Amino acid sequence: MAKSRNTSYSIGVDFGTNSVRALVVDTATGAELASAVFNYPSGRDGILLDRRDPNLARQNPADYIQGLFASVAAALRAARKRRGFDPARVVGIGVDTTGSTPLPVDRRGVPLASDPRFRRHLAAQAWLWKDHTAHAEAAEITDAARAAGVPYLAKCGGTYSSEWFWSKILHCCRAAPDVFSAAYSWLECCDFVPAYLTGSTDPLTCPRSVCAAGHKAMYNAAWRGLPSKDFLARLSPDLADLRDRLYRKAVPSDRPAGRLSPDAAKKLGLPAGIAVAVGGFDAHFGAVGSGIRPGTLVKILGTSTCDMMVWPLDRPLADVPGVCGIVPGSIVPGMYGLEAGQSAVGDIFNWFVSHLAPPEFARGDRHAGLARAAARLHPGESGLLALDWNNGNRTILVDPLLTGLLLGQTLHTTAPEIYRALIEATAFGALTIINRFEEHDVQVREIVNCGGIAEKSPLLMQIYADALNRPMKVSRSAQSCALGAALFGAVAGGAWPTTEEAQARMTAVRDKVYRPNPAAAKVYDELYTLYRALHDAFGTALYNGKLNRVMKDLLAIRDRVRKGAAH
Amino acid sequence: MAKSRNTSYSIGVDFGTNSVRALVVDTATGAELASAVFNYPSGRDGILLDRRDPNLARQNPADYIQGLFASVAAALRAARKRRGFDPARVVGIGVDTTGSTPLPVDRRGVPLASDPRFRRHLAAQAWLWKDHTAHAEAAEITDAARAAGVPYLAKCGGTYSSEWFWSKILHCCRAAPDVFSAAYSWLECCDFVPAYLTGSTDPLTCPRSVCAAGHKAMYNAAWRGLPSKDFLARLSPDLADLRDRLYRKAVPSDRPAGRLSPDAAKKLGLPAGIAVAVGGFDAHFGAVGSGIRPGTLVKILGTSTCDMMVWPLDRPLADVPGVCGIVPGSIVPGMYGLEAGQSAVGDIFNWFVSHLAPPEFARGDRHAGLARAAARLHPGESGLLALDWNNGNRTILVDPLLTGLLLGQTLHTTAPEIYRALIEATAFGALTIINRFEEHDVQVREIVNCGGIAEKSPLLMQIYADALNRPMKVSRSAQSCALGAALFGAVAGGAWPTTEEAQARMTAVRDKVYRPNPAAAKVYDELYTLYRALHDAFGTALYNGKLNRVMKDLLAIRDRVRKGAAH
Repeated sequence: MAKSRNTSYSIGVDFGTNSVRALVVDTATGAELASAVFNYPSGRDGILLDRRDPNLARQNPADYIQGLFASVAAALRAARKRRGFDPARVVGIGVDTTGSTPLPVDRRGVPLASDPRFRRHLAAQAWLWKDHTAHAEAAEITDAARAAGVPYLAKCGGTYSSEWFWSKILHCCRAAPDVFSAAYSWLECCDFVPAYLTGSTDPLTCPRSVCAAGHKAMYNAAWRGLPSKDFLARLSPDLADLRDRLYRKAVPSDRPAGRLSPDAAKKLGLPAGIAVAVGGFDAHFGAVGSGIRPGTLVKILGTSTCDMMVWPLDRPLADVPGVCGIVPGSIVPGMYGLEAGQSAVGDIFNWFVSHLAPPEFARGDRHAGLARAAARLHPGESGLLALDWNNGNRTILVDPLLTGLLLGQTLHTTAPEIYRALIEATAFGALTIINRFEEHDVQVREIVNCGGIAEKSPLLMQIYADALNRPMKVSRSAQSCALGAALFGAVAGGAWPTTEEAQARMTAVRDKVYRPNPAAAKVYDELYTLYRALHDAFGTALYNGKLNRVMKDLLAIRDRVRKGAAH
Repeated sequence: MAKSRNTSYSIGVDFGTNSVRALVVDTATGAELASAVFNYPSGRDGILLDRRDPNLARQNPADYIQGLFASVAAALRAARKRRGFDPARVVGIGVDTTGSTPLPVDRRGVPLASDPRFRRHLAAQAWLWKDHTAHAEAAEITDAARAAGVPYLAKCGGTYSSEWFWSKILHCCRAAPDVFSAAYSWLECCDFVPAYLTGSTDPLTCPRSVCAAGHKAMYNAAWRGLPSKDFLARLSPDLADLRDRLYRKAVPSDRPAGRLSPDAAKKLGLPAGIAVAVGGFDAHFGAVGSGIRPGTLVKILGTSTCDMMVWPLDRPLADVPGVCGIVPGSIVPGMYGLEAGQSAVGDIFNWFVSHLAPPEFARGDRHAGLARAAARLHPGESGLLALDWNNGNRTILVDPLLTGLLLGQTLHTTAPEIYRALIEATAFGALTIINRFEEHDVQVREIVNCGGIAEKSPLLMQIYADALNRPMKVSRSAQSCALGAALFGAVAGGAWPTTEEAQARMTAVRDKVYRPNPAAAKVYDELYTLYRALHDAFGTALYNGKLNRVMKDLLAIRDRVRKGAAH
C-alpha cells in the first residue's frame, strides 16, 4: 500500500543504562519502521565503576552525544530501505533517558566532563540513576524535611532516595567540592539531550522536564517549584545558591523543548526546525508507549523495574507512602503520574548467572538453561524463599541499605531452584507494590508489561501471573520506551493533538496473555505470607529494630573493612 | 630399630558415612603402620536415597560386612610390607561406626535386609545417622517425655532428635509395619559389627555400647537402663514390647565384647580369640584418638561435626540444654562423655561446590580454587552472613526442621565470598556450642581438631581460630577415629590397663597451632552478634514464633507439593 501524502514519521531516542536506541515510527499507526542500538563505549558496559566503592555508578556524557548521532543515523539508514520512507516527513523527535541521572555543566550548559581538568574526575561525569554513593545525604534530606515540617516528601513516598537529584548533588558538594564549585548548574540527562539537539543549552533557560523535576527534585507547583532556598540552606548554603541557577518551571513532554538546530539537523540528515519534545524518563515514556491509562499498571521489566500508573487530576488521590512519586503530567500530560519500582530485577538474575551458574548451565545463554530447568519445578517444591533486595529496595521501603536474602537451602538445593526462587522474590516484590497502591484506593484493573524481560522470559511472566494472581498482558512494542519517545515526538510535532489520542492509535497489547493457574496461585499466596514476614522483619522496625539493623550493620562493617584494607 | 619381643599391634575399624577405614597401630606408641579404605558400593556414595523424600538416608548392611573384610585385609597386606610386623602380634580390634544407625535384625541377629523378602525394602536397611524421616516421632517423644515428667531428656539436651534410635524405630513401626513386625530386635551398627566379629549375634545377649545406648536411646543407670515400658507404651504398645527384646545393660569400649571367632579370624588372617572391644561411635572414638581429657574440646570436623568433652564423674555437672548427650563412660570410661555437634559442616561446602561453583572454579579440586580466592578476603569485607543450617541444627537448637540462610548479597557478590561466608557460619555455629558449654560451667581450655577438614583446610582452621578467638590445635593422627578404635582394641586386648594410659602414649597434637589474629577476631566478634540475632530469630520463639515458623512452613509446603506432584 502506497503511503498517503499525509504520512508522517517521528523518531524516539531511548537512552538506557548500557546503550541508546533510536526508533523510527509511523505516527499514524505506531508501526515501527527501523531501529538501531549503540552500546556506550566507556567503562564496563557503559558504566564507570570504582573498585573501592560498590555504590558508585557514573557515565561519560560524551557517550550520550556519540550514541545519539550513531543510533539515529543507523536507524534512518535502515528506514530508508523501507518503501515510501522519506526523512523529510519526520515531524518530531522525542528523547527519554534513565534518571535521576544528573550531570554538572558549565555556564553554557557544556558537561564539565568535557573540560580537560575534569575529564577523569568521576564526580564530573553523569551520576547514573543506580549510583548509591549519596545514601547518607538522602537520609539527611529526609530527616531535614521531616524536621522542617515541609511537604516536599509527601509526593515521593515520604523518603528521599540516594538515587535522586539533590542527594547526588549534595554528596558531590561534600565529596568533590572542586567539581561542585566548577559546576555552574546541573542538568538531568533527559534535559541535556533535547537542549543539545535544539542548540539551546543555557542552563537558565533550557526547558526542564516535569517528569524529572517532579519525581526526583521535589519540584511541585503546589509549593511553587523546587524546595525553598531556606530549606536547601539547612542542608548546605551552596545548595541554596545553586537553586538560583536551576529552574523555576518544568514542563510535560507533549510540548516541544525547541526546534532541531541546523547543525544537529545536518548531522542527522533530518529537516532543521522540526520539533524536539521535552525529555522524560524511560519508564514514564515506556508506560505511554504501552498504552497506560487510569486503572492500568504498566511494568517496565528490565535490569530494574518501574511500575507506573496514572490518575485523573480531578479525582481524589491520597499520598501513597513508599511510592516514589506522584507528579501531575509526569507520564500522561493532564493526569497524575505515579511511579513505583524495584531496584533490581533482571540485574539479580544476571548476577546469579554470572557468579553462581555451575558449569552445566554456563554454556551459551546461561539464562535459557536455568530457565528451562526452573520451569519444570512446581511452586513451593524447592522450599526456598528469597528477598529481592540485592540492590536495595526502592518501593515500598525506599531503603538502599538493604541486601539480598536467600532462605531454605538444604544439602540438595540446586541452581535452577535458586534461580526460580529469585524470580519468585521479584514477583513478591511486585505484588507488594500493587498491594500498597490498592491499600490507598488506587485500584489496579489491568497489568501491561514491557521491556526486555517481558519479551524474553515466558517463565517469569507465568510466575508473575501466578504469584500476583492476575493476567499479565504484554505491550505490542518490543521497544515501548523508544515508542513512547517517538509518540511524544509526534505530539510535539503536531501529528496528534493529545497524548491520549496518539496512544489510542500508536500503542496496543498483544493477543498472548499469561493467565494465572489457580493451584499455583494458591501456593504463592502461602509463600507470600512468609515473604512478608521476612520483608517486614528485615525492612521495617517491626521487631524493635533488632532485625532491620542486620543488613545495615553488615554494610557498615563491610565499608569500614574495605576502607581499612585500601590503606 | 628392631621391634622388641613385646611389640604388639591393634586394629581400628572406622565405619564412616561413605566408606570404612581399617588402621593397623603399634600399641606402644600409636604409630600407624598401614591403613586401607573401602567405599560402600550401594546407592549414591554408599547411601540409599529416596527421590521423593530428601529426609531419607539408609545403608545396606551387607556393605558393612564386605567393607570390614576388604579394608582389614588390605590394611594387613600393607602392614606386612613394614619390617617387623607380624599379624600374630595383633592383640585386639576396636570398631567405631556412625550413629545412631540402627538396623532391624531377626532372632539370630541377622540383618532383615538379608532376607529376600525385605532386600529392597528401604525400612529394612540400616537407618543412617542423618536420616531425618522421623522428625514427627522425635517431636512426639519429646512431648511425651515432658508430659510424663520423666527425666529421660535431661541427659540429651532436653529435646529428642529425629536422628536417634527410638524416633527411627517408632517411625518404622508406623511407616513400615511389615518390617517392624518382622524384626525381632534392633542393633546399632556399632553393636552389630563386634557381634558379627565375635560370632555372638544373639540380640538378647550381645554386648551393647553405652556410647550408643546413653547418647541415642535414653539409656541411663540412674533410671536403670532404657526408658520404662510404661513410657514406651504411651508412644506405642509395640515399642513397649520391643523393650524386652533389646538390652538391660550397656558397657563401655575398654571392655571386650568378646573374642574374635575362628571363622572371622580365618577370613581376616588374624589370631582367633583376640579381643574385640565393645563398639562405639566414630566421634567418641575420634575424641579418644585426639587425646581428649577434662578441659579439652575435641572437634571432629567432617561432613558434619561432633564437639566432644569429658568431665570427671566426681565433679558436679549441670545438664546442658541443647547438648546432645551427657553419658558416663561414653568417651573415656570413668568420665562423663559430653557430645554436641553441627548437623552439617563439610557437607555445606560440598553442596556449594557441587551446585553453585561457577566454571572458573569448577576445574580440578573445586574447594582449592574457591579457598584460595576466599583466603584473600578480609573478615567482614563481603557484607555476607549465613546460617549453617542446611541440614538442620543439632546443637544447641536440636531442630532438624531448620534450613540454610544467606544474607547480604548485592549485585557484586562473588562465589568465593559466599564460600567464605559459609565457612564463617560454621565457625559461628561452633562458637555457639562452646558458649553453651561455658554458660553451664564446662570450661573449654583447649580445642583439638581432627578429621578430614582439619587436615585439608588451613583457611577454615584460621577462620575458626579468629572467629572463636582461641588457638586451634590439630590431632597428630590424620585418622583419629580409627586410632581411637585401635586404642580401645589395645586396651580390651590388655596392652594397656586404662584408656588414659593408652591415650598418654598413643595420641598427641601437632606442633602447628592456628592462633587468632586480634584484628580479625574483633570483626568476627561484631559479626557473631549479628549471627546470634539471626540464630535466635529463626531458631527460637523469640519473636512470638513469627520468624521461626518460616523455615518450617516452607518445608511443610515443599513436602506437600512434592507429594502432590508425585501422584
